[in-house]
Amino acid sequence: MTTVDLNCDMGESYGIWTLGADEDLLKIVSSANLACGFHAGDPSTLRSVTHSAVSHGVAVGAQVSFPDLAGFGRRPMQIDPGELRDLVLYQIAALDGFMRVLGSRVSYVKPHGALYHVTVSDPAAAAAVVAAAAEFDSTLAILGFPDSQLLRAAQAAGLRPVTEAFADRTYLADGQLQPRSAPGSVLTDSSQILERTLRLVETGEILAIDGSVIYQRAESICVHSDTPDAARIARVLRDGLEAAGISLTSFTSGSPIG
Amino acid sequence: MTTVDLNCDMGESYGIWTLGADEDLLKIVSSANLACGFHAGDPSTLRSVTHSAVSHGVAVGAQVSFPDLAGFGRRPMQIDPGELRDLVLYQIAALDGFMRVLGSRVSYVKPHGALYHVTVSDPAAAAAVVAAAAEFDSTLAILGFPDSQLLRAAQAAGLRPVTEAFADRTYLADGQLQPRSAPGSVLTDSSQILERTLRLVETGEILAIDGSVIYQRAESICVHSDTPDAARIARVLRDGLEAAGISLTSFTSGSPIG
Amino acid sequence: MTTVDLNCDMGESYGIWTLGADEDLLKIVSSANLACGFHAGDPSTLRSVTHSAVSHGVAVGAQVSFPDLAGFGRRPMQIDPGELRDLVLYQIAALDGFMRVLGSRVSYVKPHGALYHVTVSDPAAAAAVVAAAAEFDSTLAILGFPDSQLLRAAQAAGLRPVTEAFADRTYLADGQLQPRSAPGSVLTDSSQILERTLRLVETGEILAIDGSVIYQRAESICVHSDTPDAARIARVLRDGLEAAGISLTSFTSGSPIG
Amino acid sequence: MTTVDLNCDMGESYGIWTLGADEDLLKIVSSANLACGFHAGDPSTLRSVTHSAVSHGVAVGAQVSFPDLAGFGRRPMQIDPGELRDLVLYQIAALDGFMRVLGSRVSYVKPHGALYHVTVSDPAAAAAVVAAAAEFDSTLAILGFPDSQLLRAAQAAGLRPVTEAFADRTYLADGQLQPRSAPGSVLTDSSQILERTLRLVETGEILAIDGSVIYQRAESICVHSDTPDAARIARVLRDGLEAAGISLTSFTSGSPIG
Repeated sequence: MTTVDLNCDMGESYGIWTLGADEDLLKIVSSANLACGFHAGDPSTLRSVTHSAVSHGVAVGAQVSFPDLAGFGRRPMQIDPGELRDLVLYQIAALDGFMRVLGSRVSYVKPHGALYHVTVSDPAAAAAVVAAAAEFDSTLAILGFPDSQLLRAAQAAGLRPVTEAFADRTYLADGQLQPRSAPGSVLTDSSQILERTLRLVETGEILAIDGSVIYQRAESICVHSDTPDAARIARVLRDGLEAAGISLTSFTSGSPIG
Repeated sequence: MTTVDLNCDMGESYGIWTLGADEDLLKIVSSANLACGFHAGDPSTLRSVTHSAVSHGVAVGAQVSFPDLAGFGRRPMQIDPGELRDLVLYQIAALDGFMRVLGSRVSYVKPHGALYHVTVSDPAAAAAVVAAAAEFDSTLAILGFPDSQLLRAAQAAGLRPVTEAFADRTYLADGQLQPRSAPGSVLTDSSQILERTLRLVETGEILAIDGSVIYQRAESICVHSDTPDAARIARVLRDGLEAAGISLTSFTSGSPIG
Repeated sequence: MTTVDLNCDMGESYGIWTLGADEDLLKIVSSANLACGFHAGDPSTLRSVTHSAVSHGVAVGAQVSFPDLAGFGRRPMQIDPGELRDLVLYQIAALDGFMRVLGSRVSYVKPHGALYHVTVSDPAAAAAVVAAAAEFDSTLAILGFPDSQLLRAAQAAGLRPVTEAFADRTYLADGQLQPRSAPGSVLTDSSQILERTLRLVETGEILAIDGSVIYQRAESICVHSDTPDAARIARVLRDGLEAAGISLTSFTSGSPIG
Repeated sequence: MTTVDLNCDMGESYGIWTLGADEDLLKIVSSANLACGFHAGDPSTLRSVTHSAVSHGVAVGAQVSFPDLAGFGRRPMQIDPGELRDLVLYQIAALDGFMRVLGSRVSYVKPHGALYHVTVSDPAAAAAVVAAAAEFDSTLAILGFPDSQLLRAAQAAGLRPVTEAFADRTYLADGQLQPRSAPGSVLTDSSQILERTLRLVETGEILAIDGSVIYQRAESICVHSDTPDAARIARVLRDGLEAAGISLTSFTSGSPIG
């Protein structure tokens, strides 16, 4: 049976400020990338989101970030790799504490925002993130962009690299995402998102904006959580995948697609 | 053979700012109370201090604090017990990550600054701190003031309560510390500090400022780290204790005095 | 002609997180209490909210707070009065910078959250807040609760004290607010809120929850901004006041009611 | 009579952590670049350092920074120019509040750390910093590196650009500083520092590391404050300059050298 993972950013509230429909999304997705307090996610948010994730059988990943609450981790920072490794270890360990008291564990690491983008192309930053994950728990998977320095570093360190594709983003012919700033680069039509996702899961094909076809094996599909409509779109996606005989399973527990 | 523990606050540097003679003190004391990032202690400081502590065979405790970097955790805050528990769990877990990668673990919890004082008398805050420790690791000891709500909460939760006495502070007749603001309340004469400590360890007696004698069984002696002379005083204390046949052993590994 | 002021908390977004319907409310109220960055309100939020406030002719006050982003300034902190004065001066000055570049000025100070409550009863904290305001600009008004230490300190310092009443909160017979935790203590029925406000403005009477009548002269009416319905309720209030011949005027520009 | 300005970073303590010999240096230098709270400098530090600076007749500049306390503003961040302008305005205004209550004002702006380096070469960041200064007070001077984008932006905006040279740093033949990481790039021999400074002030010449001579007109000489020996070196420099008939005057009050 074909399976795929749906991953989604969560735990991004902070104090009085709420963000994202975590409770709704946890009923739908199979993996939750949880903020660890550096770009969002105060300890009480971590407590409640980890509790819900575990209740719903959703795998939990540490969504590690640059230390930048005001910029939501979206502003690139130049941080010495040694310090970056320490920052990442701190975040993984803190989140893991909330999982541990629930009898569970963090099962993967995915960089957030600017750190995600930096670790696509910067080998030193990628190695720093992976080193922190590897030293904390060598069974952690690393979730990232295909062909990224991050996934190469994971491979080199003996951690399992897991590739993701974006259900609701347009792609360039070279396999890169079209920048968010480009009009139409974020898809909002749920049937179009479902159609693209089905094609990707079943054939490995993504239609690029120039009409060419990219081949990509993604074990996980990322859905955004920060649009008003996120939970509805995720539900359409899950229902459509299941109707096509594809079941959702966390990549940490199931077999990869293919 | 009589043993006692010497504990000391450490890891209280932050970014460019350094505080305390951690490297010197780690050669002397048996337990290090490490800041966890909320009142001091950035991740790279935690990395280096945990490394040194483990190298020197010093037991590591989580010195958990209110979230107040600007106030060094010394300003009392009224925090809902549920949130306080989450803040404490976050700190213990983050520090424990740095110990874990060294093949070791946090072995006790001691509240810092204002949280230390609040948990002496406030049962709800004391229970919150202990609950976080208990859920994270039920073998954690709780280090605190004799007869405090904190140690009562530890007892009630089935965690090991460990009492400490202050080598370099004066006491009131009722067993409380004389407030720091009182002239002379912080002792700086190393031979006086040694003499008081020897008497305490050997007989359980502390001479109060009114000349009366308090009886107290302390498994650990706290020495301050934030005075220029801290490492020298700690060295005099250790040498003097050893000369008297009292060896230093962490309360988490050795037998209590007595 | 009778006039009254409507004041409302604003500028309480932070980074990616938004809070409150500032743009809608700025078309309705006459005074905006703006967060200054310590409990909410990053610099870019201050820029945009001050711009809108000035455009709409709304008076701007500094809503100064304890330094506690994670707790939204709602957690009491014990801060030395000298340091508190410095914290308050920093906040007033920072906000005033954004007003100054628009050719305007901060015209009053109102403590936020826990600092509001602390300065009702604590003379030292109240004096610290007022001292910062007075040294920065002796024409600043101080907006606060009737009979509070804050307004007494303002009077003593030669600053203009301005009393406020709460349109959407229930009162105890002694003139204090019923705690928020009590069921029904926050009113949400806009016609009831209007009715109570009209009675207050026209007669100085507030009906307490035990049926007794409190007399209070309030120059300003506080409406909450953090409920989903806040802008609609504020609109009903303004329209109802105007229909009754009462015009809205900032207390810093108009004459007090009476 | 020839005059020159000596500028120095100060106000870089934070909470319990102290940095720099501010009190000693304020008796020596003519301009103090004060941290504004984003990389260092809590409000109470600002209060006390502005007070001392004004007492000693030292001109005060806003040493504006990226928001990065843990990194001391030394880690480059990519911040949208609009947001950067808002961050800079916030800092200038906050510091100016402490000057204003002393009957004085901030008289110049100098970016700190990573922002200093970024605004040497990035026109958009440079323009953002200058725009904030210009809108706050068009009489503010901008202190920076010769030929930097920062000083060009100042010129374009009608603000006075002021060039500085570094007394204790080695230069490359192209007029750039040798990177700090290069051995010997930070000079510590006070007579060598004095000799280089005298030559610079009297002839505009700086000896580069390859033996070539750079010509540079600097209105201000920057001396570092973060070395243990900073105050002693600054004293040697001042005494030596005065012995050579060169008096120290803030560039905001005196005539430029020449």
